[in-house]
Amino acid sequence: MEISIEQVAQLIEGTVDGDGSGTVDRLEKIEEATQGSIAFLANPKYTPHLYSTQASAVIVKHDFEAEKDYTTTLIRVEDPYSSFAKLLEAYQQMTAVEKKGIENPSFQSESAQIGENVYLGAFSYLGEHVKIGNNVKIYPNSHIGDNVEIGDNTIIFAGVKIYANCKVGAHCILHSGAVVGSYGFGYAPQEDGTFKAIPQTGNVIIEDNVDIGANTTVDCATMGSTIIRSGAKLDNLVQVAHNVEIGKNNAIASQAGISGSAKLGANVQVGGQAGITGHLSLADRTIIGPQAGVPKTISEEGKVWFGSPIMEHREFLKSSIILRNLPNLIQRVKDLEKKS
Amino acid sequence: MEISIEQVAQLIEGTVDGDGSGTVDRLEKIEEATQGSIAFLANPKYTPHLYSTQASAVIVKHDFEAEKDYTTTLIRVEDPYSSFAKLLEAYQQMTAVEKKGIENPSFQSESAQIGENVYLGAFSYLGEHVKIGNNVKIYPNSHIGDNVEIGDNTIIFAGVKIYANCKVGAHCILHSGAVVGSYGFGYAPQEDGTFKAIPQTGNVIIEDNVDIGANTTVDCATMGSTIIRSGAKLDNLVQVAHNVEIGKNNAIASQAGISGSAKLGANVQVGGQAGITGHLSLADRTIIGPQAGVPKTISEEGKVWFGSPIMEHREFLKSSIILRNLPNLIQRVKDLEKKS
Amino acid sequence: MEISIEQVAQLIEGTVDGDGSGTVDRLEKIEEATQGSIAFLANPKYTPHLYSTQASAVIVKHDFEAEKDYTTTLIRVEDPYSSFAKLLEAYQQMTAVEKKGIENPSFQSESAQIGENVYLGAFSYLGEHVKIGNNVKIYPNSHIGDNVEIGDNTIIFAGVKIYANCKVGAHCILHSGAVVGSYGFGYAPQEDGTFKAIPQTGNVIIEDNVDIGANTTVDCATMGSTIIRSGAKLDNLVQVAHNVEIGKNNAIASQAGISGSAKLGANVQVGGQAGITGHLSLADRTIIGPQAGVPKTISEEGKVWFGSPIMEHREFLKSSIILRNLPNLIQRVKDLEKKS
Repeated sequence: MEISIEQVAQLIEGTVDGDGSGTVDRLEKIEEATQGSIAFLANPKYTPHLYSTQASAVIVKHDFEAEKDYTTTLIRVEDPYSSFAKLLEAYQQMTAVEKKGIENPSFQSESAQIGENVYLGAFSYLGEHVKIGNNVKIYPNSHIGDNVEIGDNTIIFAGVKIYANCKVGAHCILHSGAVVGSYGFGYAPQEDGTFKAIPQTGNVIIEDNVDIGANTTVDCATMGSTIIRSGAKLDNLVQVAHNVEIGKNNAIASQAGISGSAKLGANVQVGGQAGITGHLSLADRTIIGPQAGVPKTISEEGKVWFGSPIMEHREFLKSSIILRNLPNLIQRVKDLEKKS
Repeated sequence: MEISIEQVAQLIEGTVDGDGSGTVDRLEKIEEATQGSIAFLANPKYTPHLYSTQASAVIVKHDFEAEKDYTTTLIRVEDPYSSFAKLLEAYQQMTAVEKKGIENPSFQSESAQIGENVYLGAFSYLGEHVKIGNNVKIYPNSHIGDNVEIGDNTIIFAGVKIYANCKVGAHCILHSGAVVGSYGFGYAPQEDGTFKAIPQTGNVIIEDNVDIGANTTVDCATMGSTIIRSGAKLDNLVQVAHNVEIGKNNAIASQAGISGSAKLGANVQVGGQAGITGHLSLADRTIIGPQAGVPKTISEEGKVWFGSPIMEHREFLKSSIILRNLPNLIQRVKDLEKKS
Repeated sequence: MEISIEQVAQLIEGTVDGDGSGTVDRLEKIEEATQGSIAFLANPKYTPHLYSTQASAVIVKHDFEAEKDYTTTLIRVEDPYSSFAKLLEAYQQMTAVEKKGIENPSFQSESAQIGENVYLGAFSYLGEHVKIGNNVKIYPNSHIGDNVEIGDNTIIFAGVKIYANCKVGAHCILHSGAVVGSYGFGYAPQEDGTFKAIPQTGNVIIEDNVDIGANTTVDCATMGSTIIRSGAKLDNLVQVAHNVEIGKNNAIASQAGISGSAKLGANVQVGGQAGITGHLSLADRTIIGPQAGVPKTISEEGKVWFGSPIMEHREFLKSSIILRNLPNLIQRVKDLEKKS
């Protein structure tokens, strides 16, 4: 779908500087852009690319002053990044193929209830007493267990598996391969060395506006609920153990692991491959670095932590310098030994 | 399903202290319990919650003495935790919806053999010469490859994928998204920089009473078998590479990775996100801490190891103290330099 | 399928030393081999097993000289390992059950195009405008989204999920549970603490001869493409974030994570559980050790790195020695303090 550069400028309330009659049909990065595309320039580091870009138009800051010749058309705006994000969103809406209706074969139990304007992909399964809200999209090969409820406007991508009794809020996105409600890893060691499974009778509650990444796993609670609070975003391959509570607006990066009964405050961020020990709590706005290991409760809000086991960020930097200077320290001790 | 507090007390051989005529229909934690629920008090740390809990009944130790007023009914038993676990189990059995029969559409090859009382969920697939034991439950969207055998009473949750020729024992649980039998990561580097795949012709053998977590992956052997011995429990997102042998009654926590041809003894425990290098062995009852890295064979039984690369636990603690005291050591060297 | 030892020798251009009339029907390891199997001896470490092996034949180097009695038949060749690999390959081809044809029920959109000699397993889904090349095998329960293209001879194992608009080359293998094209983890933090999703409008391009492991996840680009170059091999449970470029002939071991917009050169190797930070590049032939953490660009080609944060291999070894000798250093400082 092509639109003219003039139309793009109107959409983002910018002014055209150059020829606005050309057409564009896609968004590209300024350093890789080809003819027929639109790019943006927000970070001054990328300015040199403006003079060589093949993009048909580039969104720039209103007061941008070129220092060399260029061949593209400029669209001047207040905030190039925001304008581009707006454009991305418009582009996504225009190009999205709206999935609708019930594909066959799919499986609906007789007791399942479905809202209006729902997409149910082929080979998807709705168990007993399932309740699906309005405008929900369930892509093919997904499994929605007995008694599961899914709120309005939520998207379940292909191959998601939700165990019985779990609840998913409105405006959520669950990516392919995500598993919600698998049994918690709870066993009572027996005298003969075997393990006896502790029954996992709880569920998972996912509140509104939550995103769950591809192949991420969220275990059900032993009793009660594993909870993912509204606005939390989980990346791919994250592990959330039984009885965990992920706080409001948390951001948990890929391959992080949250052990059983850990309780994360609001606006916590956890880096990729970090591990959080069980039965502890993290204060609001705590930031945990990538590959960090968190062995105990963090009570002070808004601190940044790195390392395994974690240290406060400043301490971590200091410690890194000390470690790097150890050969020097050894030499100094040698020198002292010679003198003494 | 409601039952009276009296009935609960009979079930767990306890004595009612207070009004036994009320009814309960669920299990909750003492600190979160609401009316109509039953809770337990085992850890003295939680005693204060007894005086404010809304639970209709609380299971306590037979000699518990209250120091304040409370409104709940007590059930006195020998061991509150065991009694509660027993109750959890009874609860699970009472509330479990027994899945039975063959749902349609599902796919059975003509040569597949199915035992008695089997559940085969919709969109599940049984390849050629598959053998399914009695009382097996295969939830929807699962794939059972050619020649796979599954023992009695095993549960395969939705969306499990088992490659051809693998064997799964009796009384196992495979959680959603688990993959069994994918090719081992074996390549012969060629002179031109490309990799030539080494054919992976073996299989996976999972013995009895094994649990495999959600989205865990177990590769087949190059030749012979990758083996998971009886009673082993694997958490979510664990990687088991080709030709690995996981020992009897092992417990492998989430996101741990076991590299090719590693051989774990009996009753080994591996912490979350730990990594075990290939072609080594771990002695019986070895315990590996979370995020640890194991570079070589551990021959001595029953030791506890932490860190990456691992150190014995006591050494690890000592080393942590030394590292924390380095700034102090630097100061002492400075002082010596001034004096000298 | 049995063949005689004579026939095996012909196949690998070896000479029989002993009785060549016996038959074999499988390949086993020399230390575990049973009657009717064929094994090989390449590593001298395994020579003692030759004198006790139950294998019906063992492939050995042409100049092998036995120092004890043995009961097996020898097949002498130039390079036992290569010969055995050749045999493995032949074995795989002979035992592979050729999957063919369209199983029912499967789902093909009317606009999907399928090449010749394709296998489409039951419960697999081909979206709108999908193009499938010749000799492609798509196992059951797989989801191929709208506009996806898959090149000739590629194998898609059971339960793979490919999002709309992605491209997969020829001669690729995607293992069960792999997810290709899930949304990148990109959010703009809002003033009220919530996150606004940045639309992810790009796709994933997988070139030829690429292997993707079980339950590995590859996110689509925000715009443009996440790219996996030809010949790259990814193990299980690997995370590839949005806009990443995995180089030609890379080998990425299990549970490694590559963050957004990282660009890996050709012939890079990444160890298991290693983490690569976003927006950096790795020079050609870089080797990253297991559990390593890479915080910044590596410009020099062909270096080996370990640790988190990474150090060059030699520096890493030196640093390990220093750390191990710290108690000794402390003692030396104590001694100096006494003297001073």
